[in-house]
Amino acid sequence: MREIEGGVTATPGIKAAGVPCGIKEDSKSDLALIHSVIPCRAVGLFTTNKVKSASIKVSMKHLADGQAQAVIINSGNANAVTGKRGLEDAQEIAGLVALQLRIKTEDVLVASTGRIGIPLPIGKIAKGLKEIVGRLSEDGGHEAARAILTTDTFPKVAAVEVDLDGRPVVVGGMAKGAGMISPNMQAPLVTRSTGQATMLAFITTDCAIDEGLLRRALVWAVDRSFNAITVDGAQSTNDMVLILANGLAENQKIFQKDSNYQKFSEALAQVTTRLAKLIVKDGEGATKFVEVEVRGALNAQGAKLVAFSIANSNLVKAMLYGGDPNWGRIMAAIGSSGAQVEEARIEIYLGDLKLASGGCGMEFSPAKAASILREDEIKILVDLNLGREGMRVWTCDLTPEYVKLNA
Amino acid sequence: MREIEGGVTATPGIKAAGVPCGIKEDSKSDLALIHSVIPCRAVGLFTTNKVKSASIKVSMKHLADGQAQAVIINSGNANAVTGKRGLEDAQEIAGLVALQLRIKTEDVLVASTGRIGIPLPIGKIAKGLKEIVGRLSEDGGHEAARAILTTDTFPKVAAVEVDLDGRPVVVGGMAKGAGMISPNMQAPLVTRSTGQATMLAFITTDCAIDEGLLRRALVWAVDRSFNAITVDGAQSTNDMVLILANGLAENQKIFQKDSNYQKFSEALAQVTTRLAKLIVKDGEGATKFVEVEVRGALNAQGAKLVAFSIANSNLVKAMLYGGDPNWGRIMAAIGSSGAQVEEARIEIYLGDLKLASGGCGMEFSPAKAASILREDEIKILVDLNLGREGMRVWTCDLTPEYVKLNA
Repeated sequence: MREIEGGVTATPGIKAAGVPCGIKEDSKSDLALIHSVIPCRAVGLFTTNKVKSASIKVSMKHLADGQAQAVIINSGNANAVTGKRGLEDAQEIAGLVALQLRIKTEDVLVASTGRIGIPLPIGKIAKGLKEIVGRLSEDGGHEAARAILTTDTFPKVAAVEVDLDGRPVVVGGMAKGAGMISPNMQAPLVTRSTGQATMLAFITTDCAIDEGLLRRALVWAVDRSFNAITVDGAQSTNDMVLILANGLAENQKIFQKDSNYQKFSEALAQVTTRLAKLIVKDGEGATKFVEVEVRGALNAQGAKLVAFSIANSNLVKAMLYGGDPNWGRIMAAIGSSGAQVEEARIEIYLGDLKLASGGCGMEFSPAKAASILREDEIKILVDLNLGREGMRVWTCDLTPEYVKLNA
Repeated sequence: MREIEGGVTATPGIKAAGVPCGIKEDSKSDLALIHSVIPCRAVGLFTTNKVKSASIKVSMKHLADGQAQAVIINSGNANAVTGKRGLEDAQEIAGLVALQLRIKTEDVLVASTGRIGIPLPIGKIAKGLKEIVGRLSEDGGHEAARAILTTDTFPKVAAVEVDLDGRPVVVGGMAKGAGMISPNMQAPLVTRSTGQATMLAFITTDCAIDEGLLRRALVWAVDRSFNAITVDGAQSTNDMVLILANGLAENQKIFQKDSNYQKFSEALAQVTTRLAKLIVKDGEGATKFVEVEVRGALNAQGAKLVAFSIANSNLVKAMLYGGDPNWGRIMAAIGSSGAQVEEARIEIYLGDLKLASGGCGMEFSPAKAASILREDEIKILVDLNLGREGMRVWTCDLTPEYVKLNA
């Protein structure tokens, strides 16, 4: 497996484009289109927020047959809590894209991100659609990645190539994040634990793979990437990850969990992981990238509760911004997580520095702790010493800038 | 029922004092003592954090017999995650207080607030104890209220008097809060829902009341006051509410849920509510007092989930600081709360201004919204229109100052 240049258009048979259509006031790019030359196997994971945007609802419906050929994304307006009109708008956009690309309406997926509760400027979007179709290009991945941004400060793309029985298979993707980031996306009808963001990610691949295995690989990859990040613990109405697999690599189609499935899954996870990390690094106001690792939990749910309790604690995050090794706040977050823990067994590390063990603080060098906290990337490791389950979550610090950005 | 002056020493038979003993570096007052002339019926509610301070553990043990006569409180050090030594220290402090007051060690309760993980300076405290006993006074309530503060900017006291069959009965109290405030205190062995703070509150009364009813009244009053506030959603290892009832009012002892029980409960709730509001108003960095009311929930748990999801949302709280009526963030917090909701039924009000209804935003005057958001006290009302349960939570805005204070 090797990293390659590009985003969604790194994948053969995929074109993309991005244009400004006037949703954003400052004529920034706000409309993106992805198009595959042939219909794709397609899977989506969507926010578990009970309030879902119209675009989420329409995309879920259009994905019922497991097939798609294009994705239209607007930024600057979430088309959420917009009632019947919002649904009609999302459907109209899908219809217009289908008409211009001469594909089926049901093969067009729709995504939105931006302010909630304001009807889409459908006239502007319709105009933009005419323009964007003409701009579709095999080099359009970066342009599309820029068009989906909101408060993000840089576009986020990643791509890898992996050999399956000697044939090169590509996985490419793009994402946006910044605020309202703590996704917990699930496949429709798959109910599991809950979490939170607007984050959007779009993945393309030319791998030939069975739809059920594509879904399984995506769930696996998203659980250890997008579903394992949090900026502010706030779950969006619009979170969405889509994957389109057009099969043009002509590898022997993956039908079972064999070594090719394994290789493909790992390539996919590499792309989603790279994009997830970029989202955290670009979190609103963030100055630090923080990894929280929990080990020794009795069960997976307990590991997740503890990891997110630490990663979502304003007190822990403000401390990471300030550079004070006040590990008592980590201990308080562990104890209030809801997971089964025993104070006397908990070990807390900052980098390789042990801060607490056996229900007591350790003697440690304040200078060493301060130097670890000055790094751009900080690791907090918690060993609960009760069982064998673990969880790793990525987050950022909480800064005065975050509050100002959201005020 | 009428409000009266004073805090814990508003109650006849109660003396208190506060002194600096050197735990805090700047010779601020950091040791407080409450003493009743006779043993009291006593009940405590404690943090549900699985990591509990040594003072919590010792107080729980000493309350097993439902009796207490004194409370010793230190600020500046939480005596939490301090292992065996922390427990020995807390027990030693109780023993020293008992010795000097000539009461039973088991009748001394211990409370602490401050930094976690650092052993108590027991020598300094022992010296302070000798001094504080000599300062005990029937006017010492304010002095004691000052000695329990940490990042609080003002002392918090409240007292009321109520007539029970013609006899005046007093309820007086003091509290501290500021950060790590989202208490969810429960009586030991009473397991219910979970929540989060260090907040401490100490209530005294001269009411003659059965211990079981005293506990019931305290649980009722705390659930609608301290357990219904949040500053930062962070649950402390040290949260504690204690009530001491010395019976000196010589009212006919309350043995059943009659009208006197009702009057006493309401007096108690008035004191805890006043103290809880003062804690929110003094929340770290807070500039706004915010009431979040949820109506129409299918069940009480759902109402609580929605109310706290809104009140703990950094995005909602930053918006309240900034004064932008971006109600989509409230909708996102409702949908991700875990409670059963239906988007199309949700109504959101800011003050008396309806912002959203029927799954859509309303047309409203931005000037009116802006003027409501400029007030010091803001009310958010959410009607889920599904059932008859409700919950009211008090919180504050999230400000750059909060982050700086905790950095």
